[in-house]
Amino acid sequence: MLSAQTVAEHASQDNCWIIIHGQVYDITSFIPEHPGGSKIILKYAGKDATEAYEPIHPPNTIKDNLTPDKHLGPVDPSTVTKVVKVLSEAEKQRQVLLENRPPLDEILNLHDFEAVAKVVLPPTAWAYYSSASDDEITIRENRAAFQRVWFRPRILVNVSTIDYSSTILGQRSSLPVYISATALGKLGHPDGELNLTRAAGKHGVIQMIPTLASCSFDEIVDAAQPNQPLFLQLYVNRDREITKTIRVKALFITVDAPQLGRREKDMRMKFVGSDGTAKVQDGMSGVKKDEGVARAISSFIDPSLCWDDIPWFQTITNMAIILKGVSTPEDAILALESGCQGIVLSNHGGRQLDTSRSGLENLIDIVAALKTRGPWPNPKFSVFVDGGVRRGSDVLKALALGATAVGVGRGFLYAFCSYGEAGVEKAFKILGDELEMNMRLLGARNLKEIKPEMVDASGLRSHAGLTPTDNLYQSTYQPLRLAEFKGSKM
Amino acid sequence: MLSAQTVAEHASQDNCWIIIHGQVYDITSFIPEHPGGSKIILKYAGKDATEAYEPIHPPNTIKDNLTPDKHLGPVDPSTVTKVVKVLSEAEKQRQVLLENRPPLDEILNLHDFEAVAKVVLPPTAWAYYSSASDDEITIRENRAAFQRVWFRPRILVNVSTIDYSSTILGQRSSLPVYISATALGKLGHPDGELNLTRAAGKHGVIQMIPTLASCSFDEIVDAAQPNQPLFLQLYVNRDREITKTIRVKALFITVDAPQLGRREKDMRMKFVGSDGTAKVQDGMSGVKKDEGVARAISSFIDPSLCWDDIPWFQTITNMAIILKGVSTPEDAILALESGCQGIVLSNHGGRQLDTSRSGLENLIDIVAALKTRGPWPNPKFSVFVDGGVRRGSDVLKALALGATAVGVGRGFLYAFCSYGEAGVEKAFKILGDELEMNMRLLGARNLKEIKPEMVDASGLRSHAGLTPTDNLYQSTYQPLRLAEFKGSKM
Amino acid sequence: MLSAQTVAEHASQDNCWIIIHGQVYDITSFIPEHPGGSKIILKYAGKDATEAYEPIHPPNTIKDNLTPDKHLGPVDPSTVTKVVKVLSEAEKQRQVLLENRPPLDEILNLHDFEAVAKVVLPPTAWAYYSSASDDEITIRENRAAFQRVWFRPRILVNVSTIDYSSTILGQRSSLPVYISATALGKLGHPDGELNLTRAAGKHGVIQMIPTLASCSFDEIVDAAQPNQPLFLQLYVNRDREITKTIRVKALFITVDAPQLGRREKDMRMKFVGSDGTAKVQDGMSGVKKDEGVARAISSFIDPSLCWDDIPWFQTITNMAIILKGVSTPEDAILALESGCQGIVLSNHGGRQLDTSRSGLENLIDIVAALKTRGPWPNPKFSVFVDGGVRRGSDVLKALALGATAVGVGRGFLYAFCSYGEAGVEKAFKILGDELEMNMRLLGARNLKEIKPEMVDASGLRSHAGLTPTDNLYQSTYQPLRLAEFKGSKM
Amino acid sequence: MLSAQTVAEHASQDNCWIIIHGQVYDITSFIPEHPGGSKIILKYAGKDATEAYEPIHPPNTIKDNLTPDKHLGPVDPSTVTKVVKVLSEAEKQRQVLLENRPPLDEILNLHDFEAVAKVVLPPTAWAYYSSASDDEITIRENRAAFQRVWFRPRILVNVSTIDYSSTILGQRSSLPVYISATALGKLGHPDGELNLTRAAGKHGVIQMIPTLASCSFDEIVDAAQPNQPLFLQLYVNRDREITKTIRVKALFITVDAPQLGRREKDMRMKFVGSDGTAKVQDGMSGVKKDEGVARAISSFIDPSLCWDDIPWFQTITNMAIILKGVSTPEDAILALESGCQGIVLSNHGGRQLDTSRSGLENLIDIVAALKTRGPWPNPKFSVFVDGGVRRGSDVLKALALGATAVGVGRGFLYAFCSYGEAGVEKAFKILGDELEMNMRLLGARNLKEIKPEMVDASGLRSHAGLTPTDNLYQSTYQPLRLAEFKGSKM
Repeated sequence: MLSAQTVAEHASQDNCWIIIHGQVYDITSFIPEHPGGSKIILKYAGKDATEAYEPIHPPNTIKDNLTPDKHLGPVDPSTVTKVVKVLSEAEKQRQVLLENRPPLDEILNLHDFEAVAKVVLPPTAWAYYSSASDDEITIRENRAAFQRVWFRPRILVNVSTIDYSSTILGQRSSLPVYISATALGKLGHPDGELNLTRAAGKHGVIQMIPTLASCSFDEIVDAAQPNQPLFLQLYVNRDREITKTIRVKALFITVDAPQLGRREKDMRMKFVGSDGTAKVQDGMSGVKKDEGVARAISSFIDPSLCWDDIPWFQTITNMAIILKGVSTPEDAILALESGCQGIVLSNHGGRQLDTSRSGLENLIDIVAALKTRGPWPNPKFSVFVDGGVRRGSDVLKALALGATAVGVGRGFLYAFCSYGEAGVEKAFKILGDELEMNMRLLGARNLKEIKPEMVDASGLRSHAGLTPTDNLYQSTYQPLRLAEFKGSKM
Repeated sequence: MLSAQTVAEHASQDNCWIIIHGQVYDITSFIPEHPGGSKIILKYAGKDATEAYEPIHPPNTIKDNLTPDKHLGPVDPSTVTKVVKVLSEAEKQRQVLLENRPPLDEILNLHDFEAVAKVVLPPTAWAYYSSASDDEITIRENRAAFQRVWFRPRILVNVSTIDYSSTILGQRSSLPVYISATALGKLGHPDGELNLTRAAGKHGVIQMIPTLASCSFDEIVDAAQPNQPLFLQLYVNRDREITKTIRVKALFITVDAPQLGRREKDMRMKFVGSDGTAKVQDGMSGVKKDEGVARAISSFIDPSLCWDDIPWFQTITNMAIILKGVSTPEDAILALESGCQGIVLSNHGGRQLDTSRSGLENLIDIVAALKTRGPWPNPKFSVFVDGGVRRGSDVLKALALGATAVGVGRGFLYAFCSYGEAGVEKAFKILGDELEMNMRLLGARNLKEIKPEMVDASGLRSHAGLTPTDNLYQSTYQPLRLAEFKGSKM
Repeated sequence: MLSAQTVAEHASQDNCWIIIHGQVYDITSFIPEHPGGSKIILKYAGKDATEAYEPIHPPNTIKDNLTPDKHLGPVDPSTVTKVVKVLSEAEKQRQVLLENRPPLDEILNLHDFEAVAKVVLPPTAWAYYSSASDDEITIRENRAAFQRVWFRPRILVNVSTIDYSSTILGQRSSLPVYISATALGKLGHPDGELNLTRAAGKHGVIQMIPTLASCSFDEIVDAAQPNQPLFLQLYVNRDREITKTIRVKALFITVDAPQLGRREKDMRMKFVGSDGTAKVQDGMSGVKKDEGVARAISSFIDPSLCWDDIPWFQTITNMAIILKGVSTPEDAILALESGCQGIVLSNHGGRQLDTSRSGLENLIDIVAALKTRGPWPNPKFSVFVDGGVRRGSDVLKALALGATAVGVGRGFLYAFCSYGEAGVEKAFKILGDELEMNMRLLGARNLKEIKPEMVDASGLRSHAGLTPTDNLYQSTYQPLRLAEFKGSKM
Repeated sequence: MLSAQTVAEHASQDNCWIIIHGQVYDITSFIPEHPGGSKIILKYAGKDATEAYEPIHPPNTIKDNLTPDKHLGPVDPSTVTKVVKVLSEAEKQRQVLLENRPPLDEILNLHDFEAVAKVVLPPTAWAYYSSASDDEITIRENRAAFQRVWFRPRILVNVSTIDYSSTILGQRSSLPVYISATALGKLGHPDGELNLTRAAGKHGVIQMIPTLASCSFDEIVDAAQPNQPLFLQLYVNRDREITKTIRVKALFITVDAPQLGRREKDMRMKFVGSDGTAKVQDGMSGVKKDEGVARAISSFIDPSLCWDDIPWFQTITNMAIILKGVSTPEDAILALESGCQGIVLSNHGGRQLDTSRSGLENLIDIVAALKTRGPWPNPKFSVFVDGGVRRGSDVLKALALGATAVGVGRGFLYAFCSYGEAGVEKAFKILGDELEMNMRLLGARNLKEIKPEMVDASGLRSHAGLTPTDNLYQSTYQPLRLAEFKGSKM
C-alpha cells in the first residue's frame, strides 16, 4: 500500500499522481488529454481528488481512460490527513438557504422545484443543469409551444372516476409520463439518480437511466424494486460497446448529439472565481480549454453513428430500440422502416441545435406522416415527446396531438436537487393531481378519451417573434393611471 | 342553555365543541373531514368561531354537515366574554387605506374598482377573488381576447337617442349585461351579495344568485324589490336536491366544474403567516391539506353530472335551464337538442381548465354551428358570454359577434368590495355611459343595430404568443434617446 | 362703467358676476349649466376670470351662451387691482425646464417635440392634448400600424432631384401633408393656432382651422398671407349655422364625433390638486360633473347629423366638402355617391371610439372598394389619412397605399407648444428632409413615382396581441449574460 | 519649410491654416464647405489638427478637396511644440475599463465583442458604428429575422468530418462568410482596417475593403499576404473615377446609398459636451450643421448613379461586378440581365432606409424569382446576404435559403475594436466552431448538404408587431409567485 506522503511527492505536471476513492493513479500522460483541461487536474496533483472528481465523472471514468499499468494500487488510509474544507461565504449562505427552503407542503407545482433548486444548488450545478445551447431560444420555445395550444373542453361527461395510468412500451406506468435521462445527478444531491429510482419504484413510474449517470448502472439496479421496469439512454461511443442490460426494457439511442452543444451559461462558470490573472490577449493560444462541465464529459461520443448502424444494434439486443432526438417526418418514417419500436421527438432539452423547433410542434407533422404508413395509433411504434413539460395540462396536450407518453427530465431533477427522494414523490403526486383535475375538466375519463379535437393547435406554428418597436414613441407615451388614494401614490 | 364555560371544557381534538351564531356544536367526529383541514378548526376548539366561520361558509353549512345529535343547542350569551381582537399592523394599515380610498367620483372605469379592491381587501379575500387556475393563462386571455377584436364604426347615423336596454330570458334589463355569480361575498363586504341585489333592484339589472353565496337565498330574496327578476347558479351536488326557487326566472347549471380548479394564488395564502414550524420534508404525510378557500368549499360538487341528467332537471322545474360553461360547438348543439334554453360561453373566469380558450373566441365557432340548425338569432335559445369584460365596448363586441347578453362577475364584485351598494350603482352607470357613447360612435341606436360587420374579429384566433428573444442581442442594443434638457437627464 | 367693487359684491351662487376681457357678465342662471361644472366657476365669482377662461374657451363662448341682458357692460379698468399670482413650486420648476429646453438645433425628429412638450406644458394642457379615449388602444395602434408596413426599395434610379410637393384639393402644397385641426391651442402657447398659420404661410403648407380654436377665425385669417389657402374643420352643432368662410378652400365635416369620447387621462386631471374634501361615497349625487377639458367644450355637438344633411351643406356652400372620420368601405362609397369631394380616414387621433382600427389599415380596404367605382386615383375624390404620423417614411407609406395626402395634428401642435412658430417651421423642415431622403432611398423622384409595390403591407392586419405568458416560468428562467469585466458587473 | 509660429498667425475664420501630417494647408475658402461644419474646424485654426483629423477622414481627403495652391508645403517639425493632451475623467475611466476588459479566452460569441466594444470605445466611435437610421427598426429586424427561421435537423448522418470551406466569386474561403466593408476603422483601433487584412490573410478569409477606410488602399494591400484575395466596396462619386484596383477580385458597387441615412444616435453625439451656449430658438438659421460623423463624410456620393451606368463600369474593368444593396426581385432580375456577377441583399446594416425588410426575408422572394430565369444555383450569379449575423447558425439559415455566402460587418469590426487583430482571429474561430457544431447537429457534412428543407422559414414574414395592451388591466393584474423561503422574499 502506498502512503499519502509518497503520493504527495508526485505533484508536478511531469510526474503526477492522484488519489480517487482510495486508489492511486499515475495520470501524467493523461493530463494533456483531460477533456476538462489540465489546469483543473493539476490543482489535485499528489492529493486526494475524490470529492471534486465524483459528481462530474460517471463511474469508472478514470479506470476506463487509463491503461492498467497506471493503476498503482490502494493508498494507506491511515496516512491520509483529512483536508478541512473552508467554506466560502457564498457557500455558507447557500447552506442557510438550503436549511430554510420552503416546506414540501408549500410546493404547489413543478416550477416551485425549479425556483428552489436555482437557489440551493451550487452555482456550477445550476449552470450545468439549467443551461442550453447558444442563445437558448429553443429551451424557451419548448415551454412556449405548450402555451400556444389551447383546450376545447367537453362538458357533462360523468367524470367521477379518472384513470390516467398508461402502458409504455409494454410496461405499466402509473402516469403517462416517464423520467427522462439527465446527466450527473450527484452534482445536485449526494444520492444522485438513486432518488429517482427509489421514488419511481414506489410509485410505478419508469425511469430512463442516463449514460452519464453519476451512479453506476449496478447501483441503480440495486436501488430498484424487484420488478421495476427501467429504460436506458445510450450515447453511442466509438467502441459500440453496450453494457449488459439485464432488466432494461428499452434502449433509447441518442441521435441528436453527435457533438455536444455549446452551453454558454455553463461555460461562463469556468471564469467565475478564476484568479483574474489570465492575460487579455490569451485567447488564441490553446484549443482545448475549460469549456464547462458539459464538454468535459463528451469526448467519447461517436459522431459517425448513422442509419447503417441500426441493424447491428438489432442483432445484439432484443430490447425495444427507440431513437431519441427525432425532429422531422422524414426521419420518423426512416425509423419506422428500419424496424425501430419508437422515437422521441426531442431537441435534448434545448441543449443541442439552437432554434430547433419544439418536439410538440414537430409532433403534428410527424403524426400526419406516420398516418400515411398504416393504422394509427400504431401499437408497434411509439411516439414520445419531451421538453418544456411543467404541468399535467402539457402532458394532455401532447397526448391529444398523438404522443404515446411524455418525458420529463429537469422537472424531476430539480425535485430531487431540492428535496431528495421525497421531492420526486411530490412531483409525481402533483402531476397526478393535475392530470386528474384537467382530465375531469376536459371531459376525458381515461387516456383513450383524450382526442385531437380537444385541443386547438392552430397557433402552434405562429412563432412570430417580436417586431422591433419604436423606442422614441414608447418613451413619450405616458401610460394610463388608475384612481389614486389620498395622500399617496398607490 | 349551555354556558360558555361548559363549551370551553371541550377544547381538544378528541372532544371538540364550538359556538357558531350562538349555537353549540360537537364537531369532534367532523374534524378529520373538514375540507379546510383540521388545523384551522382546532384554533377555535371550545370557543366562539362565528367571525372566522361566517364569510367563508355558505349559510347552513354546519347544520347540513352534522347530524342533529351533534347540535347541542344555544349558548347562554351572558356567559360569553367578548374577545377583544388585536389588530395586526397590516390590518391597521389596511383600515387606513380603506379610509383614504378615492372618492367614488374619481372612479372612471371598472379597472378602478379592481385597483381599489386590491388594496383594501384582506389579503385572503383578494387572493380568493382574484385567483385563477394553474398558470392563469386563461384569465388573462379572457381579457386579451376583447382587444383582438377591432371596431369598424359607421358614420352619419342620427344617434340622438340611444337605447341599450335589453330583454334577457324574457325579463327586461336596463343593460345587455347581467350580474354573474361569484361566491362568498362577505369575504369582501359585510353585506355580501345583498349589495348586488339592492343595486340591481334599483337599476333594473338581473342578478344571478351564486350557489356559494355568503348570504342565504332567503336573505337575498328579502332584499329584492317586489318584481325584481333573479337567476340562480347551480352547482349540482350528489343529492341532486334543488332549493325551492320561487321567484327565480332561470337556472344556470354549472357544467365546467366537476371538480374545482387549482387556484395557486389562493392556495399560497395558506402559508402566509403560518408559524414556520412545518418541517421541510413534511409534504407526503397527509393528503387533504389546507388548499385555500376555493377547495375548502368544493367537496360537495358532483362529478358524475352528465347529459343524461338534463331530462330530470326538466321534469322538476319549469324554469329556463341554461348550461353555464360551454366551450365547443359540439356541446352547444347538444344543449340545443336537449331542449335547454341557452348556454353561457364561459371558462369560469379562468378558474377551471387553464389554457382554455376565451368565451369570446368560442362564440364565433358556436354561432356558426347554431346557424346551421335553424333561424338565427334563435328566440328560444340564448347564447351568453362571460369573462374579462371591463368596458362597454367589450359588451358591444360580444353582441356584434352574436351574444344575447354578457355576464360580468368580478367587475361588480370589486365594486361592492370597494364601495358597497353605491359602488355597484356606479358600475352600472359607468357601463351605461360607455355603452351609450360607444353605440353612438359605432352608429348603432339600439342593440338590434349592432351588426357582425361592425367588428373585425380576424385577429381573435391569433394568440401567437411570444417567441423567446435573443437576450444577448437585447443586452447590447442601446435604445434611442430623445433630445436632452440642459443640465439634466430627462 | 361698472367698478370692480360693484362686481365684487356679486360673488355668491345666487348672485354671480364675473369679468372676462374687461366686460362684466351676470352668470347666475348659467352656473348650473356650465359644462365644466359649477365649482370651477364659483372660484371666480365677483372677480376677473379672464386668465382662466381664455385658453379653454373658443372665442365668444360666453357671449353666445348668455342672453344680451346678462351682458352688463365694461368694467372700469382703473378700479381693477392686479392680482399678484403666486406660482406653485411645480409651476416654478416648469418655468425652469422651459428655460432649459434643448436648443431647436438639437431637435432631430417629431418625437423630440413631443418629449419637450410633455415636460414644458402645464399638466392640464398635456393631459388634454395627449389623452385619447378609454384604454388608449387606438391611439397607440395608429402609430404601431405604420411600423407593420415595410419598404421594398428600388435601386439605381437617378435620384439627383427630388420633388415632394403636392396639390391638395386644388391647392399647391410644399409637402404631401396638411396641418390637421387640433383644439384649444392657447392651452399650450399664448399665440395658439396663429403659430401654425404664420409658419404655414411662410412655407406653403395648408392649415385646417379647428372649430374649437382658441383664436377666432378672424384672427387666423388676419395672420395668414394674402393668398394662403386654409381649410376648415367643422363640428356641426344643433343650429346648423356655418360661419361665413371667405378664403376657406374646403370644409372638413367631422363625422366621427356625435359625442366626444371619454378621455380618462384628461378627466383624472380634475382630481389632481383638489382639496381632498370630497366624500368617498359621493359619486351618485350629480350627473354633470367635472369631466376634463374635452367634455367641458363639447355640449354643442349635434348627434343627429346624418347622411340626409349632406345635400343641405351642398346647397349652402361651393367649398369642397370632405367627411373627416370615415372608417369603412361602405361609408366611403356613400361619401362618393353623395357627391363629397373626399374623405379623411381618421379615428380622431384615437380620441373617439377606442379599439377602432387605424386609418392606415382601413385605407387598404377603402381604396380597393373605390377602385370598383371608377378610375383610380380619382381626381375628383381625395382620400386623406391621419393619425400616428411621426416620420416622412410614414407619409410615404400612406401615399404608396393610395392616400392623396396625410394630416398631421399633434406633431405640429407639440412643435409650437415647445418652440412657437419656429418649432412649426422646424417640423416642416424635418418632414421635408425625411421625405427627400426616404424618396431617394426608395427610388422615387416625385410623389407619382411612389407605387403600391414599394411597400409590403401584408403584416398590417396582424395585430395579434400578446398571449399571456407563463409568469412562473419567466421567474425561474435566468437570462444569459455577456462576458464580464474584471472587478465589476458590467 | 514653414514654422509652427507662422502657421499660428493664420488662426482666424478669414485666414485659416492648419497642419495635417506635417503639411500646412490654407483652408480659409474651404471652411464654409466643410461637411462637418465650420465650428469644429476652427478649433484647430493655426494648429496641428492631425490627431482629430485622422480617424474620421479617409486618406487624402484634404488633398482631394483643396486645389494645389492651397497646399503650402511642410512644417518644420522642430518648431512644433507637442500638445500635452489632458484626459477627461470619462476618458480616464474608459482607459481603466479597456485595461480590465475580459480576457479573450472568456469571449464566447460575437455578442461578447459588441458588449466589450460598447464599453471601451470612445462614445463618438460607438455612436458612429452602432447607429442606424431613423427609428432603428430595420437594424433590429435584421437580427430578429434570423430568429424567425427554425431548424429541421436530420439525424443519423455520419458527421465525423465537417467541411465548411467555400468558394466565393472563384476565390477559396475558409468560411462561407466574408468581411463586409465598414467605414473609418481607426475610430476604434489605431491600426484600423489593417487588423482585418492581417487576420484575414492568416485564416483564408476574404475582406471587402471599404471606400471610406481610415487606411489607404496601399496600406491595406501592403498588409495583405502575397496571394490574399480582396474585394472592394465602391461608393460611386460624381467623377466616376475608379481607383486602380490591382489585386482586387470583385467590385461591390453600393446601390442603396444615393444619400446617407439620418443616423440620429450619431447626430446626438454632436450635442454632447457642447458648451450649452446655443440659443433655444437657433434652429432655422443655417442649413448645413454638424450632423454626426456619417453625414460629414458623405458629400461626395453621386445620387444620379443608375442602371445606365452599369455598361460603363463593365467597359473599364474585368473584375466581377456585384451590386450591394438589392432588396427586390425586380432589381435582382435587372442585375442578372445587365450582366452583373452577383448581388448583395442588404439594407446597409439598417443605416439607410428604415423599415426596409431584412436581406434574409428578401432572399426568399429573390431566389424564387431567379429560379424562373435559369438553373439554380447559378454558378455565374452569386447572391450574398448581410445584416444581423451573430451566430454560425445564422449563416447556415441564409445558405439553406439560397445564399452563396454571408457578409459580416459589425461583428468583425467590434472584434478588432476590442482586441485588435487577435480579436478578429478569435471571431473567425468562434464562427468556425459554431458552423462545425451546427452542421453536425443539422446532419450536413459540407455546405452542399445544407438544404432548404432543413429550415422552417414560414414565420419569417410574420413581423406582426405589438398590439398596444391594456395598461390599466396590466396594472391591476398581480403576477403569480413561487414558493417562498422562510424569513425572506426570494
